[in-house]
Amino acid sequence: MVLNRADIEVKYQRFQREFVAALNRIDPQVEFVSDVWERPEGGGGISMVASGDGVIEKAAVNFSSVAGETPAQISERLTSESSTFAATGVSIIVHPANPHAPTFHSNIRYFETDSGRAWFGGGADLTPYYLYEVDVIEFHSALAEVCDRHELADYAAWKQECDRYFRLPHRGEARGVGGIFFDHLEGDMEQTLRFQLDFAETLTDVYPRILDRRVDHEFTESQRQWQLYRRGRYVEFNLLWDRGTKFGIETGGRAESILASLPPLVRFEYGYEPAADSPESRMLSLLRDQPRRWVPDSLLGTPATKV
Amino acid sequence: MVLNRADIEVKYQRFQREFVAALNRIDPQVEFVSDVWERPEGGGGISMVASGDGVIEKAAVNFSSVAGETPAQISERLTSESSTFAATGVSIIVHPANPHAPTFHSNIRYFETDSGRAWFGGGADLTPYYLYEVDVIEFHSALAEVCDRHELADYAAWKQECDRYFRLPHRGEARGVGGIFFDHLEGDMEQTLRFQLDFAETLTDVYPRILDRRVDHEFTESQRQWQLYRRGRYVEFNLLWDRGTKFGIETGGRAESILASLPPLVRFEYGYEPAADSPESRMLSLLRDQPRRWVPDSLLGTPATKV
Repeated sequence: MVLNRADIEVKYQRFQREFVAALNRIDPQVEFVSDVWERPEGGGGISMVASGDGVIEKAAVNFSSVAGETPAQISERLTSESSTFAATGVSIIVHPANPHAPTFHSNIRYFETDSGRAWFGGGADLTPYYLYEVDVIEFHSALAEVCDRHELADYAAWKQECDRYFRLPHRGEARGVGGIFFDHLEGDMEQTLRFQLDFAETLTDVYPRILDRRVDHEFTESQRQWQLYRRGRYVEFNLLWDRGTKFGIETGGRAESILASLPPLVRFEYGYEPAADSPESRMLSLLRDQPRRWVPDSLLGTPATKV
Repeated sequence: MVLNRADIEVKYQRFQREFVAALNRIDPQVEFVSDVWERPEGGGGISMVASGDGVIEKAAVNFSSVAGETPAQISERLTSESSTFAATGVSIIVHPANPHAPTFHSNIRYFETDSGRAWFGGGADLTPYYLYEVDVIEFHSALAEVCDRHELADYAAWKQECDRYFRLPHRGEARGVGGIFFDHLEGDMEQTLRFQLDFAETLTDVYPRILDRRVDHEFTESQRQWQLYRRGRYVEFNLLWDRGTKFGIETGGRAESILASLPPLVRFEYGYEPAADSPESRMLSLLRDQPRRWVPDSLLGTPATKV
């Protein structure tokens, strides 16, 4: 059955508000500014963006709902038979000031075409600058658990998908420690929506908890410089490789919202390599190695073990 | 007639050294580090990169000469019948520390395919953060003059090509105040090479002179912040739109050299607009307007007026 898009939009906006509220509990000083915008070709959005000197250096929690003719350059990518599309979603990016706290990215989205097809997509991933295994395990475990609660969800496959997607081939590096990435969920739409909202609630819970744990960690100027340097890779990924960014830019999306994901301050340095055996080089080795498994076997339910 | 590529490479490397020497005369403290690298698939290069706290915050003057099989994803773009290619060139980027001094970019290049075709390309353009018309006129006039000395060169057409190329469509902005951009020069190769070397000499003269004029200009912290913010547009252009970057990344080029063009420190801010009637907003208006003419008519020779 086809869902009511307006209903999904209401639920997506609630997720937007709740995520912002959760960040505000960790950083009460940071002020989110709401920017309501319209797209000339149809639809619009609400961008909630914060920048500050406290815990959160920059965050964007953006809702959008756009509709219109499928642009020629992406119609093939969407579906061959459709000429109009509607897409609604929430995109989140959080760049903490403290280099010990990881950057967080997430996205949930719903697509409809005029040929009657509709599907969900989404994902969440973590980009630490220093490796705290406990954070990464907690993040991946929360994702594995929410997947385990829904028959249609497949943590192991989606974790792999995420590792494949968030890579910088030109650097031979992963962007971060991954998470999950799913697309084209077309089965039972009500169950899929239920999963997506449970997923959203999980994110609202788990990332602020990890953030809260790291934000009082003392850091040195050289640790800050390493964070600014690594943020450069985030920029490279988003502008060179990210399909969402390309889709947005090519469809004449609102540049200011699409590029709100870019870090507040970034450093590019030619030929930089961290000292051997430093925490920085250990982080880099992890990103250059094969993706690791983060969740204990006991947590990895298979479809057969799900109720 | 077909030129000797090794001979061109020698001349390109001389240009590289002379441009570095010219920058060093303006900023004697800045230290260029030479990085000789090899490309596993054939060829290699010499990257000369500097970063410092003085006049030049970052500069890259890179020579490369690569050869190999034409990668599938670009063979169409190059020429339909060729299966191997050779490309040699010099790429220059200078990011001064002082926001009153413009960023400079240039490139000269020579291509050969196994089907016997060969051509030259190149260009140079200026990206100021504050508008000093005298600088822009001097830059464009020098380019118009060197074009005027060579029958095959067409300043007016190449200036337009440059304006067309260095645009950020998603922002509705020019990257800077342009310059010239030329490609696929296939006529008399000896004459073309002679033009290119004269062009290179012009650049070695004109940009350091403009730089020298601005580097002692006092600046405020907010002017510096404007520069860092506008450098973000440079990053957006290079990673989202620049064909040279795409070509390099897609052909498995050396990422560290290709991305040496990225500014040393960059700031991204959501929704920023400079105050009305400020020097910053005047600069922005210029970039959003139709490209301006910078050279007096008297300087614009037509082919008929050339000797």
